[in-house]
Amino acid sequence: MRIARCGGPEGVIGFGVVEGVDEAGAVTAESTFTPILGHPFGQIEVAGPPVPLEGLRLLAPTLPSKVIAVGRNYADHARELGNEVPDEPIIFLKPSTSVIGPGEAIVLPEQSEQVEHEAELAVVIGRLCKEVPLHRVPEVILGYTVANDVTARDLQRADGQWTRGKGFDTFCPIGPWIETDLDPDDLTLTCTVGDELRQATSTSHMERRAHELVAWISNVMTLIPGDVILTGTPAGVGPLRDGDSVSVTISSIGTLTNRVVSS
Amino acid sequence: MRIARCGGPEGVIGFGVVEGVDEAGAVTAESTFTPILGHPFGQIEVAGPPVPLEGLRLLAPTLPSKVIAVGRNYADHARELGNEVPDEPIIFLKPSTSVIGPGEAIVLPEQSEQVEHEAELAVVIGRLCKEVPLHRVPEVILGYTVANDVTARDLQRADGQWTRGKGFDTFCPIGPWIETDLDPDDLTLTCTVGDELRQATSTSHMERRAHELVAWISNVMTLIPGDVILTGTPAGVGPLRDGDSVSVTISSIGTLTNRVVSS
Repeated sequence: MRIARCGGPEGVIGFGVVEGVDEAGAVTAESTFTPILGHPFGQIEVAGPPVPLEGLRLLAPTLPSKVIAVGRNYADHARELGNEVPDEPIIFLKPSTSVIGPGEAIVLPEQSEQVEHEAELAVVIGRLCKEVPLHRVPEVILGYTVANDVTARDLQRADGQWTRGKGFDTFCPIGPWIETDLDPDDLTLTCTVGDELRQATSTSHMERRAHELVAWISNVMTLIPGDVILTGTPAGVGPLRDGDSVSVTISSIGTLTNRVVSS
Repeated sequence: MRIARCGGPEGVIGFGVVEGVDEAGAVTAESTFTPILGHPFGQIEVAGPPVPLEGLRLLAPTLPSKVIAVGRNYADHARELGNEVPDEPIIFLKPSTSVIGPGEAIVLPEQSEQVEHEAELAVVIGRLCKEVPLHRVPEVILGYTVANDVTARDLQRADGQWTRGKGFDTFCPIGPWIETDLDPDDLTLTCTVGDELRQATSTSHMERRAHELVAWISNVMTLIPGDVILTGTPAGVGPLRDGDSVSVTISSIGTLTNRVVSS
């Protein structure tokens, strides 16, 4: 099932179920959005008839209380920045104010001269949980979406701590929807800027799989429904410039596209 | 004015105004809590008569969407850990799930063998804001409270990134209330563990003053009412052990006391 959050013509915002997207996960004239009652973190109840998805605006599919991201989880990316894969996951936080949805603009901050894309698979938490054993992780996951861990590389390097470089408003695009039925361990992940393919991998190349990361992070902090875990980026990170269009695609989920504008 | 959040005997939780605490900021038999309508981020309207504060339980005085903390903002603390004061503020985030109130227990996680206190002045944001010029910072501040930026020093050092070491549940005690009328630049800040004085300074020794930090951080990320900014800790950080009681006191605000328990 694909769960999206949409704004309608009258500005009404709500969660719903998306159906009828094409093989590549693209919205077509046949795609529909069926609104659901309340939120998707529990029993899902239909709230009305399906409507054409094309007339609606897809928003970030979750409003996370926190975004926990994992660094250096693909060996090829760790190497391209001159780093080793760490013995234990390195985690950092992106603020909720950095989250935007599909189609929204990534705004390049004046403080940075080197803003880069990082294509990532994102886990969306479905249940309040803490200290989750690995075999029970599937119970606490609502589904998976596509993310771009936008990073001001120059500030990340200068500060040592990654919070500023990764924490600007608009630096966490997620979407277009949450796929609830998915094996996260062998998905194709790509990133293109304009026509140029920048990143391409399989999630099977992660050092630590998505479920392991959820279990590990839940041993540090309580996770809340809607929270997002970014599972790391593969090699090929590169610049985003004013006027660019950046697309991250994950097989069986879809494509997250954002334009880039200067501030 | 002092704004607190309290739980009452019937479990009702709400914001209110505290009056009648003693010179040292301690609750006495004369202290009262006057409930207010809704929240304190706007016009404050009284919702009922004052009640004795002693019968109520003080909670964390704000539920922040994010806690932004500043590293190495007192030169003596930077030096005691072998660091320099950075040219620009170093910021990091503590998750909202780390926040606890006065009297709640700091839980020592199994992963760490070196959990330490860090006494800090905390700014509480009162208005949605971004890119706030220094002279307008007072308009976006609701007030100030007392904080303890609890840190697993061994994990902070091992990870390089500070998120895990500072992000465990219960690692961000704040309270006991928010003082809205305060000059933040010359307050006495102390930390005691049991009877032992561990940290003592004046906020006049900050490298960057509270208002400067708010302006600087608002150039990175949008701030939301209730968000908390921790302004850094002075020298004297030291261990917290099972059974300890740790108190952070700031003149003109009051004392935040938490016990420490093993997990």
